[in-house]
Amino acid sequence: MFETAELGHKLDKAIYRQEEPGLRQALLEAQYELKQRSEFAVVILINGVDGAGKGETVNLLNEWMDPRLIQTHAFGAPSDEESDRPRMWRYWRALPPKGRVGILFGSWYSEPILQRVSGDIKAARFEQENEEIVRFEKMLVHEGVLLFKFWFHLAKDRQKKRLKELEKDPRTRWRVTDADWEHFKHYDEFREVSEKSLLKTSSAEAPWVVIDGEDTCYRSLTVGRLLLAGIRKRLDQPDSRVMAIEAAPLLPPLDKLYLLDRLTLNQTMEKADYERELEAWQGKLNTLSRHPAFTKRSVVAVFEGHDAAGKGGAIRRLTAALDARQYQVVPIAAPTEEERAQPYLWRFWRHLPRRGRLTIFDRSWYGRVLVERVEGFCAEADWMRAYAEINDFEREMVENGVIVVKFWLAIDQDEQLKRFNEREQIEFKRFKITEEDWRNREKWGQYAVAVHDMVDRTSTSIAPWTLVEANNKLYARIKILKTLCKAIESALAAPKGERNG
Amino acid sequence: MFETAELGHKLDKAIYRQEEPGLRQALLEAQYELKQRSEFAVVILINGVDGAGKGETVNLLNEWMDPRLIQTHAFGAPSDEESDRPRMWRYWRALPPKGRVGILFGSWYSEPILQRVSGDIKAARFEQENEEIVRFEKMLVHEGVLLFKFWFHLAKDRQKKRLKELEKDPRTRWRVTDADWEHFKHYDEFREVSEKSLLKTSSAEAPWVVIDGEDTCYRSLTVGRLLLAGIRKRLDQPDSRVMAIEAAPLLPPLDKLYLLDRLTLNQTMEKADYERELEAWQGKLNTLSRHPAFTKRSVVAVFEGHDAAGKGGAIRRLTAALDARQYQVVPIAAPTEEERAQPYLWRFWRHLPRRGRLTIFDRSWYGRVLVERVEGFCAEADWMRAYAEINDFEREMVENGVIVVKFWLAIDQDEQLKRFNEREQIEFKRFKITEEDWRNREKWGQYAVAVHDMVDRTSTSIAPWTLVEANNKLYARIKILKTLCKAIESALAAPKGERNG
Repeated sequence: MFETAELGHKLDKAIYRQEEPGLRQALLEAQYELKQRSEFAVVILINGVDGAGKGETVNLLNEWMDPRLIQTHAFGAPSDEESDRPRMWRYWRALPPKGRVGILFGSWYSEPILQRVSGDIKAARFEQENEEIVRFEKMLVHEGVLLFKFWFHLAKDRQKKRLKELEKDPRTRWRVTDADWEHFKHYDEFREVSEKSLLKTSSAEAPWVVIDGEDTCYRSLTVGRLLLAGIRKRLDQPDSRVMAIEAAPLLPPLDKLYLLDRLTLNQTMEKADYERELEAWQGKLNTLSRHPAFTKRSVVAVFEGHDAAGKGGAIRRLTAALDARQYQVVPIAAPTEEERAQPYLWRFWRHLPRRGRLTIFDRSWYGRVLVERVEGFCAEADWMRAYAEINDFEREMVENGVIVVKFWLAIDQDEQLKRFNEREQIEFKRFKITEEDWRNREKWGQYAVAVHDMVDRTSTSIAPWTLVEANNKLYARIKILKTLCKAIESALAAPKGERNG
Repeated sequence: MFETAELGHKLDKAIYRQEEPGLRQALLEAQYELKQRSEFAVVILINGVDGAGKGETVNLLNEWMDPRLIQTHAFGAPSDEESDRPRMWRYWRALPPKGRVGILFGSWYSEPILQRVSGDIKAARFEQENEEIVRFEKMLVHEGVLLFKFWFHLAKDRQKKRLKELEKDPRTRWRVTDADWEHFKHYDEFREVSEKSLLKTSSAEAPWVVIDGEDTCYRSLTVGRLLLAGIRKRLDQPDSRVMAIEAAPLLPPLDKLYLLDRLTLNQTMEKADYERELEAWQGKLNTLSRHPAFTKRSVVAVFEGHDAAGKGGAIRRLTAALDARQYQVVPIAAPTEEERAQPYLWRFWRHLPRRGRLTIFDRSWYGRVLVERVEGFCAEADWMRAYAEINDFEREMVENGVIVVKFWLAIDQDEQLKRFNEREQIEFKRFKITEEDWRNREKWGQYAVAVHDMVDRTSTSIAPWTLVEANNKLYARIKILKTLCKAIESALAAPKGERNG
């Protein structure tokens, strides 16, 4: 992987000087067109060995292009708000919106590589993280992001020489830190581990480009040309977005037996039993939320279900047991303008709770495989890939200590009709019923298929679906509270799922 | 202020039980209407003495109303991202958008009161902070926020009794912390300081309501009724937004002599001198940005000016001297949907830099008194009050260690015409010239008046305007670099402007 970058590439300064002005102008032009059309975002990852010109390149790109349309993020030690959330949260919040260029200095590669070099993670874990990165980048590319991954390389003897040169010059001395020399000591391990990571993660969608960092002219012009060619190509072929491979279509079960049909929706629960159980489980939930071990964990609870299935009421029975300072309920409606300029999952990532807290989603990322699928708001290829993306998202949470619970509240068509009619009678509930609810009702069968496939493909051992028979509201509320309590209880009892300490 | 809340108010439980269901329903109804119309946000501040039912009330409100439309924020110790920015930043980021209810548990009152009680700040400083709060809340109200300020009170002996009761009951013991007893020791000082603050900050726009915290029924129903009456009143009188008092109109100077007329726009600068000075000042800026003292400070640089005055070019000469990891350029265009749902200054607060960093605004909050004034995008009362709000905003920054520099780049009409024509010739610069630029040009005189008033009213000793004669781009760039360097240099030499540490 690094051999060709150790050939000692060089470029004549005269050639550089001749080409630079035209390149700059063309890059600027591409950048303004990118902004004006705002159809996709450009993400540039800058990684590699110290002294190979990473920082200089980032600065050069900001000089060549219009810095007003570039967002540069360097990832050092995470802030406390960042380390309180799943590992990838800080990268999601740094993604540029459509029309902009984002330069990520460090990126999601630095941590696994450095942790592997220092022996903090084992080979299997390292392998797994690389696979996760491949899937994450695939998702970005499918969401329309134009991704460049630059690795700046220097052979061992050249790195040593370079660091010494920088140290000798008083103007550049500050750039060589103790950490740089510390890293140098581990050059060989670093090279070996990096190479493994690069090989694993150089995919068709997001290939690595290794750049010989020694000669400034060579390095700069290589990066500049690659960027220009990549952005221009995408701009000139408006439909050059990586086409999803068309998967074979999903087929309904041959016997037409759907998951929801198997539920006994009419469960019984006496009012008196309900009152007693409600108090008991709310008390339990309150105790769990104040458990010392809970300060290291967090909860993400997802509520999905038929319209009028009682999500709001169930959520309120749950929050009533909690301290309002500890939870946030996030109702998911149409995405805002800022959310539409980002990959699909961005608007859920932004709401993830800090440790010790709970976020309750009233509707969620499952909209992609429910309403968006049924209504045709996105292409089949988009919702088909969403199953795997969602599983990755939830695994990322669970591995970082988040307790994920997911509820589907199921009622039948008669019960729904009864509730719709009731809502229209009651003044203050009229806000809750819209034209859209009546329209969705006509697609009952299509939703049944979508729910069936959703549960089939996203009910995992780490984040299982709980189907809630909800014709009887009292029964449903108790089942939800109980399920949540048990999930928290078993998570607090188990060794922490978190991988980073 | 607290006497009436020490009368020992009580409410019969039967009355409470009778009224509660109707109140809940009416609150829910109001909440859904608030959401549907999304015309204003409701902010509820919860402050007062420990044990007076603050937490219980917050939980009750979340139970009574729909928690999906409420955002509750408790303010404990600031996170590192928060303490790295001006004091009010954490409150700005917690403001609810239009259509939502935000409950702020703690709020901007807690810190000054506790600091005054502990003697960390002097009386004069405390006084000043209260005045700042008054102006801040006035701004919120003018921006359409419906603000409730509840102070929960308990007489000294009752507080002691209450804390003891809570401690005795195993179910509530956890709620009494050492800090609560520590606070209790200072009850008298706390009462005295709080009363001063409440008296100072109980304004016509945002009056305090002191609530006797002893009796749960009395306390809860009082808060509920007040909220309902307040929200309903505003909903039922769509135009009940506090009307700005119409100020006397601004008059142009009698002799028609405007600030910009006094500038000698054609300055000279030889190319060779420029190259030499550019290198020198960029080197200086680079050194300053790496000065150890700079890690405790930050820079906010504002660029305003005529269209085509050379803002972009000047910004690039500045960023070229900096490490890209350290700065962010924020171009200000039309606000996004999320920004439009917030008070005007929200979209600038969100971009303020952490310590050790620079944010460069290409156009800024001055849009309010420039383009919005000239084009009539906002009412006269709105841009008239903006001068004072902007001065408050900038003072808040400076007092927290931010170095604020502001540039107006001035060219004359002939120079602008020349540049417009040039831009239309050059392929990649065509993106930079729009219909709007030509239209703005026709309003040259109106902009001259607006700039005159702007400088007149917002050039303060702590955040002065620098007028830049920009017919000669080289001269302008050097003047800007030099001014910025001197501002940073003198700030780093001076004792820290910050007040909290």
